[in-house]
Amino acid sequence: MDVANIKTPADIRDLSDEELILLSKDIRKFLIEKCAVTGGHIGANLGVVELTLALHKYFNSPTDKIIFDVGHQAYIHKILTGRAEQFDQLRQHNGLSGFPKRSESEHDVWEAGHSSTSLSAAMGMAKARDIMGDAYHVVPVIGDGALTGGMALEALNHIGHDKTNMTIILNDNEMSIAPNVGAMHNMFGRLRTNQNYNRAKVDIDGFLSKLPGGHKLRDSADRIKDSLKYLVVPGVFFEELGIKYVGPVDGHSFRELGEAIETSKRIKGPVIIHVITKKGKGYEHAENDKIGTWHGLGPYKLDTGEQLAGKASAPSWSQLMSDSVMALAESDRRIVAITPAMPVGSKLTKFQQQLPDQFFDVGIAEQHAVTMAGGLAANGMIPYVAIYSTFLQRAYDQMLHDIDRQNLHAVFGIDRSGLVGADGETHQGVFDIPFLTHLPNMTVMMPKDEDEAGKMVYSAFNEYTGPIAIRYPRGNGLGVKVSAPETGVPYGTWEVLREGQDAVILSFGPTLQAILEAQEVLLKEGINVEVVNARFIKPLDTAYLNKLNARRVPVMTVEESILTGGFGSLVVNYFNDQNMDVHVRRLGIDNEYIEQGDVDMLLQEIGLTTAHFIDEIKQMVGKNEKTAD
Amino acid sequence: MDVANIKTPADIRDLSDEELILLSKDIRKFLIEKCAVTGGHIGANLGVVELTLALHKYFNSPTDKIIFDVGHQAYIHKILTGRAEQFDQLRQHNGLSGFPKRSESEHDVWEAGHSSTSLSAAMGMAKARDIMGDAYHVVPVIGDGALTGGMALEALNHIGHDKTNMTIILNDNEMSIAPNVGAMHNMFGRLRTNQNYNRAKVDIDGFLSKLPGGHKLRDSADRIKDSLKYLVVPGVFFEELGIKYVGPVDGHSFRELGEAIETSKRIKGPVIIHVITKKGKGYEHAENDKIGTWHGLGPYKLDTGEQLAGKASAPSWSQLMSDSVMALAESDRRIVAITPAMPVGSKLTKFQQQLPDQFFDVGIAEQHAVTMAGGLAANGMIPYVAIYSTFLQRAYDQMLHDIDRQNLHAVFGIDRSGLVGADGETHQGVFDIPFLTHLPNMTVMMPKDEDEAGKMVYSAFNEYTGPIAIRYPRGNGLGVKVSAPETGVPYGTWEVLREGQDAVILSFGPTLQAILEAQEVLLKEGINVEVVNARFIKPLDTAYLNKLNARRVPVMTVEESILTGGFGSLVVNYFNDQNMDVHVRRLGIDNEYIEQGDVDMLLQEIGLTTAHFIDEIKQMVGKNEKTAD
Repeated sequence: MDVANIKTPADIRDLSDEELILLSKDIRKFLIEKCAVTGGHIGANLGVVELTLALHKYFNSPTDKIIFDVGHQAYIHKILTGRAEQFDQLRQHNGLSGFPKRSESEHDVWEAGHSSTSLSAAMGMAKARDIMGDAYHVVPVIGDGALTGGMALEALNHIGHDKTNMTIILNDNEMSIAPNVGAMHNMFGRLRTNQNYNRAKVDIDGFLSKLPGGHKLRDSADRIKDSLKYLVVPGVFFEELGIKYVGPVDGHSFRELGEAIETSKRIKGPVIIHVITKKGKGYEHAENDKIGTWHGLGPYKLDTGEQLAGKASAPSWSQLMSDSVMALAESDRRIVAITPAMPVGSKLTKFQQQLPDQFFDVGIAEQHAVTMAGGLAANGMIPYVAIYSTFLQRAYDQMLHDIDRQNLHAVFGIDRSGLVGADGETHQGVFDIPFLTHLPNMTVMMPKDEDEAGKMVYSAFNEYTGPIAIRYPRGNGLGVKVSAPETGVPYGTWEVLREGQDAVILSFGPTLQAILEAQEVLLKEGINVEVVNARFIKPLDTAYLNKLNARRVPVMTVEESILTGGFGSLVVNYFNDQNMDVHVRRLGIDNEYIEQGDVDMLLQEIGLTTAHFIDEIKQMVGKNEKTAD
Repeated sequence: MDVANIKTPADIRDLSDEELILLSKDIRKFLIEKCAVTGGHIGANLGVVELTLALHKYFNSPTDKIIFDVGHQAYIHKILTGRAEQFDQLRQHNGLSGFPKRSESEHDVWEAGHSSTSLSAAMGMAKARDIMGDAYHVVPVIGDGALTGGMALEALNHIGHDKTNMTIILNDNEMSIAPNVGAMHNMFGRLRTNQNYNRAKVDIDGFLSKLPGGHKLRDSADRIKDSLKYLVVPGVFFEELGIKYVGPVDGHSFRELGEAIETSKRIKGPVIIHVITKKGKGYEHAENDKIGTWHGLGPYKLDTGEQLAGKASAPSWSQLMSDSVMALAESDRRIVAITPAMPVGSKLTKFQQQLPDQFFDVGIAEQHAVTMAGGLAANGMIPYVAIYSTFLQRAYDQMLHDIDRQNLHAVFGIDRSGLVGADGETHQGVFDIPFLTHLPNMTVMMPKDEDEAGKMVYSAFNEYTGPIAIRYPRGNGLGVKVSAPETGVPYGTWEVLREGQDAVILSFGPTLQAILEAQEVLLKEGINVEVVNARFIKPLDTAYLNKLNARRVPVMTVEESILTGGFGSLVVNYFNDQNMDVHVRRLGIDNEYIEQGDVDMLLQEIGLTTAHFIDEIKQMVGKNEKTAD
């Protein structure tokens, strides 16, 4: 069996364990080679080669529903469902998605990207099955990190209570993205060491009955017998929740995986199979990763594993923000940093090392991260939560109900704001402006460059109060030198970068670079455009906006964000409410989800490039002249 | 000690248990009498009289931080912190809040309203304490229902891992709002029955060593001894998470409460005290409540407990919606209803009884509720999630990432949309329009009356596709007769209720009633206003809006909702984007949280009454005439 020949899971169903072992090697080689070129979540996928093969051997997809939590570990599933030849376009524009996608295959029964959704989805699917009188298997596959996300625990609580038939695969690789934290993680560690006596299947009843006087133990109370089940059932946590525990199982042994799955099929009600896997298995560079740098990455050299960085001429925005906050935290113990499982991605490892008492990695738990910040702020601290825009969606109510409503002074570093590229529609940071700006007390900012970012951090901790969000994009900064900020940014003010009489462009963040390029081109053609750094998305600089009334100049807003409820929308409403006759051309993302692809290509498609800006301004200026006739 | 004389918790600190028992009786009498007049969460508070007294006797508030989860059980806390005399204005406009409020008292260290936030807040406060070198106690008080909310479990996982010093009070009254569901609830039930042998404190090591041959048991493995701890530690679930378990404790015994709290103070690291209380304790009418009708309620007769309903001339909106969905579900097994712990509030008990297989109460778990609906929809069902607007905030990412992004056909009944009154700022349903309308595939509707609600339900299940939200307000309908719908509402269309040439008012929902009244008054004064039922908040009826361009008539939008990102904002942006010169007067809630109070009084304050509409229209029409000069 060759990787490229697999068209459906049925093609591997009759393979022997030995044949599967050979196929596993081929698949690993295939993945390592493909991802070296395209990048991708190679580590997670190398860990689940045998597991995915076993799932497709012992379950009958798509009749049986295999649901991948998060979904970035579904590459082998894609290979086994006939998509091997599309891996050259993995995570590229119009190419194969890095996540399950219902439009790609009938075997992708559920889409994800964010973690911890699979158990709820599985509960829904299992109930659909039961109500309609069907009999298929429902098999959520969830990592140990994702299992600690609140909604996964909500689902476990419901599943255990309801006794719903399903087989939960707990893929325990000891890492979610960064090394896992949390009490459940510690518990899994204890379970892993229980492997030996679990296999021995000690018969406690028999054991006790052979002891002289042992019957007294049995007589003393039924509850003792109940308790003794913990000797043979290491997964007491799950058993307490009403879910049968099977394992731990070696996730790289087809024999053990097969036995466990067959056992689970015989059990009525919910079963959890605890599968131990090794992230990066079979590729030493990924296997040896202890901090999560091989989680999701770009292209790399096959032989050395060296990561082929892009134009990394400047430090990343994440690094810059984390360093700026750390500089303040070094002399102010009230400043503490919180990350929900993203110390590497948010570049907080230096902060973690140097100020360990002021640093908290709370695991995949965005809701807890935000409200814990609220508790800190309520007791006089100034917490900094570094969180990806897309993951902050998970903590919307905490931002509203706990932080903003209590008007607590907490600072949010909204990482990966705007388009993120290869991770696609589940990860684009394009909703935070709409969902944050309608919170009454919230300040929302975005710096134009690194130096302004430093100043914004300074202001956020030293000059402003209440809840403050500082957005910053994925990737590297512009290379602008950062001066040690002694003053910050005057609250609520914008900055005119170029003065001009023919049109005004309002925008923020690195998008301004492309706009400044357009401004230069237009200037040469005799069109004089004013470019404004609208660094405060909320509140708007109304002093500036008021002046536009008299100028009767066309206005354009540009945002790498969803338009509904966005920055341009706020500007338009301000003009309307002030009875100002200013029409605004709003550029941004119009009511759609943006799939994966190179960011430049996506900007091209959405219409947010220098060329687009030039065209739009020309049209506006032309139209304006006509209107003035 | 008299209830009215208590000024600070210090006043009760030296009371004996006997004196506390007497005070408890006084407090109960006080609460029952006051709430009979004002209404309130009487049941929950009667259950925690002794517990709150014990907390304030053995802890030193406000130095020690007592954090009430949800917060509606803090009435006794308010009495003990000098607020007894304000109970005549409980939950009234400018009166005493029904929840902890930081502006009311230094003893209110954290505000809530939504459930499951206390543990995260406590973690933040405990860390603030540790970092700043302080030594006070942090004491979150959380119900068994709230503990199953995802974010509480996220926090437990972090607290247990970190070994943070705190005393968690688990207030187990076997009910959250409705009877609890979930595996953790079952577990608590088992713990409650463990009371006897927990007290006996069996020394297993000693017990075994006295058995002939018992040493073999000890020799066999250390892990056996580890496992035997479960004999004396009934709270194995918590112990597995690294949290010491103390209990169960009779929550109405000052002796037991005192012992447990003193024990907890001696233990390093996190402790959970499992306190068993009886909701409604001491007032038979509330004690006998088995379904949650005594959770939060209006005034009642002291002697009979009879609830003094308001103008309940018409069935509630909740009842109407639930009945409409049930009527469809009876002949279509694909239609299933989900509620996150609100079967009573959402009037789904009849549905639950008549179609039990198609009904799911998932407990306090809004995230799981929504994504489970996604799983059902992905497998061909048409789920209906009945959820309060304010609680849907908790599932924003699930609405976006799981439902809307996958464009699944699921129907959301957004209960308590708009102002809710006495529950105040944490419960106002005024954010759902901004947070739902920017989701690309979402349809958002609100019916003008009961008959239209029935038609919308019909259309949502039979005619439309994708995710659909139907908003409806708290309280009773208008009394409009509901015809059995054979057709629904044409998608995306508005309805002109009154034609007029002088001004146009766009609004939706029951707010239209007050607008129609204004229209009549204005008509008598010679001002002819067009009133439009903008029943689709998204998508807008652009065919109607386009016609306004030529008419050059002033437009007003009215919404009982936050203005930023709201309905009026969408209309304004549409006019802007179409280059239509139509100015819009937007009435609604302007960037603030609305505190508790009678809804009519709140509308008066916000400016959303018939009189306001009349004034606004007169101003607009006058101004318009001037502009036209």
